Amino acid sequence: MNNWPAQHSSPYVNSLALPLQQYKVVRAIRMAGDLSRTDLARKLGYSRALISGVVKNLIARGILVEGEEAASTGGRRAKNLVFNDSFAYVFGIDIGATSVDLALANFRGEFLLRDARPLDVRDGPEAVLTEIAGIAQAMIDELGIPNDKVLSLGIGVPGPVDFARGVLIMPPIMPGWGEYPIRQKMRGIFPAATVMVDNDVNVMAMGELRGGAGKGVENFIFVKVGTGIGAGIVARGSIYRGSDGCAGDIGHIQADRNGPVCHCGNVGCLEAMASGSAISRLAMEVARDGRSPIMARYLEQGVERLTARHVGMAAHEGDRVAMAIIKESGSLIGSVLAGVVNFFNPSLILIGGGVAHIGTQFLANIRRSVLSRSLPLSTQNLRIDYSSMGDDAGVTGAVALALEHIFIAAE
Amino acid sequence: MNNWPAQHSSPYVNSLALPLQQYKVVRAIRMAGDLSRTDLARKLGYSRALISGVVKNLIARGILVEGEEAASTGGRRAKNLVFNDSFAYVFGIDIGATSVDLALANFRGEFLLRDARPLDVRDGPEAVLTEIAGIAQAMIDELGIPNDKVLSLGIGVPGPVDFARGVLIMPPIMPGWGEYPIRQKMRGIFPAATVMVDNDVNVMAMGELRGGAGKGVENFIFVKVGTGIGAGIVARGSIYRGSDGCAGDIGHIQADRNGPVCHCGNVGCLEAMASGSAISRLAMEVARDGRSPIMARYLEQGVERLTARHVGMAAHEGDRVAMAIIKESGSLIGSVLAGVVNFFNPSLILIGGGVAHIGTQFLANIRRSVLSRSLPLSTQNLRIDYSSMGDDAGVTGAVALALEHIFIAAE
Repeated sequence: MNNWPAQHSSPYVNSLALPLQQYKVVRAIRMAGDLSRTDLARKLGYSRALISGVVKNLIARGILVEGEEAASTGGRRAKNLVFNDSFAYVFGIDIGATSVDLALANFRGEFLLRDARPLDVRDGPEAVLTEIAGIAQAMIDELGIPNDKVLSLGIGVPGPVDFARGVLIMPPIMPGWGEYPIRQKMRGIFPAATVMVDNDVNVMAMGELRGGAGKGVENFIFVKVGTGIGAGIVARGSIYRGSDGCAGDIGHIQADRNGPVCHCGNVGCLEAMASGSAISRLAMEVARDGRSPIMARYLEQGVERLTARHVGMAAHEGDRVAMAIIKESGSLIGSVLAGVVNFFNPSLILIGGGVAHIGTQFLANIRRSVLSRSLPLSTQNLRIDYSSMGDDAGVTGAVALALEHIFIAAE
Repeated sequence: MNNWPAQHSSPYVNSLALPLQQYKVVRAIRMAGDLSRTDLARKLGYSRALISGVVKNLIARGILVEGEEAASTGGRRAKNLVFNDSFAYVFGIDIGATSVDLALANFRGEFLLRDARPLDVRDGPEAVLTEIAGIAQAMIDELGIPNDKVLSLGIGVPGPVDFARGVLIMPPIMPGWGEYPIRQKMRGIFPAATVMVDNDVNVMAMGELRGGAGKGVENFIFVKVGTGIGAGIVARGSIYRGSDGCAGDIGHIQADRNGPVCHCGNVGCLEAMASGSAISRLAMEVARDGRSPIMARYLEQGVERLTARHVGMAAHEGDRVAMAIIKESGSLIGSVLAGVVNFFNPSLILIGGGVAHIGTQFLANIRRSVLSRSLPLSTQNLRIDYSSMGDDAGVTGAVALALEHIFIAAE
């Protein structure tokens, strides 16, 4: 299909190798935000003297600095250790089908600049990534940050990713992107950067885990309902990708064995029946055959293709057929999630993506369907809610992804 | 329902608390079997001097001994460290609906004695656990092991377990066992023992992970098809239990929305359509209404209740209706597992339990169904096979469970 050069280099070719003890200290502070030397010694099982030595090295390397004074416990006041915010800069880049959202963050993960604009992934990887690199370049120029201080990029994309290799695998809605060497392209502009590419739902789940409703939640699922349907999985506090990196592909679980044929070739996939595309298709049907006079009016008024947003508007206007489409979509998603709940027993399911806010009946029917089909033991502590971060989940997760891969442990 | 005393004590009331450094060394050796001091230093990021001190303490406590000489790398030969086999003894106890399987193992996990015998869980926990304790007592007496050298028991039970509390929760096939304080009962006989109770499928998955086809496999699923249907999940190399400890309950995922009503109250659960009980029910139907002359003959010959075994025999004799039952059961299980594969992306599914070997068409149809319904990316490296350990998976896993909970890290 494509003839991109094979990308053999390790994802970590630019990662900074730290001795294991330093690496563990950095990781502990990344998870906690700030820690005292005593905290570190207790957490890692190192002696106080060893920690002092390791911390001294990390301060000398410019990675850590002494932070605010911790709460006094009598005697000498302990200062907590925090990251030196200017040690490195990272970009979180959330690429959608028709938009891109960027955040430039410092080494502590604080956002310095944001940019969001429309963009069409169908223009292909060369054009799209050249444009994104240009935006990123303008952002660091604005703050006077040199290119080689950008040590990591986290990139979320709306398609299946081979996480280790950082390439898309046969992406259905990103023509031309399969196997394209995103890492090499971005390193052309940011030569010192580690480049991590992940599926957009994994990145959103990461965002919720580090900065949203998933904070401190051991096992949860982020479900994105947009043009397609997919899930990001957090198991025991970190992103679970499965054996081939494609875990969470709930859009192709069968929702109805008598359902329509999906673009994947199977019958009755959830995505073919309840996604934004499916809702759009159903809306066109009921508008054309006269079952929905309200949506027929939208077409007369010049709307070319009805979308989930129009269905939501029609339902809001009292259109019963639109309401039924919303309810049925929620019920189908809920019936598939009921199986997921029985299998995975999460304590939280977050619903995000462009279709999530189509109408109150949508979430209500997801909940109803899960509760009626899952076992009581699995649902007693289960919360099903909207994504807490909305459009920020992706870019927040992309920054977290970037920050977590600046260092590797030396062999 | 029951009036058992509440069991408030921590599962680890008897666990030996080790300083974190000692704990980490013990855990590393538990996973690897044996390690040199150099291996330990590298793995844990401790200095060689620190490791020497920690190991010295563990040898003094009788936990470690110097093992065989490791392969020479020139100079002084390094001796690997292994567990002192007589430091502790443990029992692995696999309780089935109508049988119990016990193994007495030393601290290295080597089996010293085995015992297996029929037993009916419907006799209730007092009677059953008293009998099991008697068998265990006879086993240690035979080898002259004092009761307080039994430091841990791992117990697998065929019902839902609250793992932290070590009690069964509303077990459908174990009347009288709900909330029964198994730990307290067993500590009456083995006062120094940590008692870990887990669902039988988790224990079987643990057996495959430590000593079977799951060894070294990061993400896999063990599916038990018996009277009921359940799954044990291994995620990133350890048992995944979910937020409430009930992950893996695939028996109540809907296989057909027009299916029969399940004992759980829902419609079309996999367990109601493809388990040993379902197969038995279908066999009785086709024998009585004349569709299966071969199984009708079994009834005439005095069989009271046809089981999955009879269906297997009939299929072997060429009974087409029996074959169809086997195929349909496999297909239904496969269709549910297809959803699980899309969600979890494991690299291995192991099929065990009493019904697994009902006929070659069973596994073949599970495979066919999964492959036809899952996405190619999820199945390219997926292996679906019989359990490699058969009846030994449970007791092997129970021993591993016991060994992993002898120690806890001191606060």
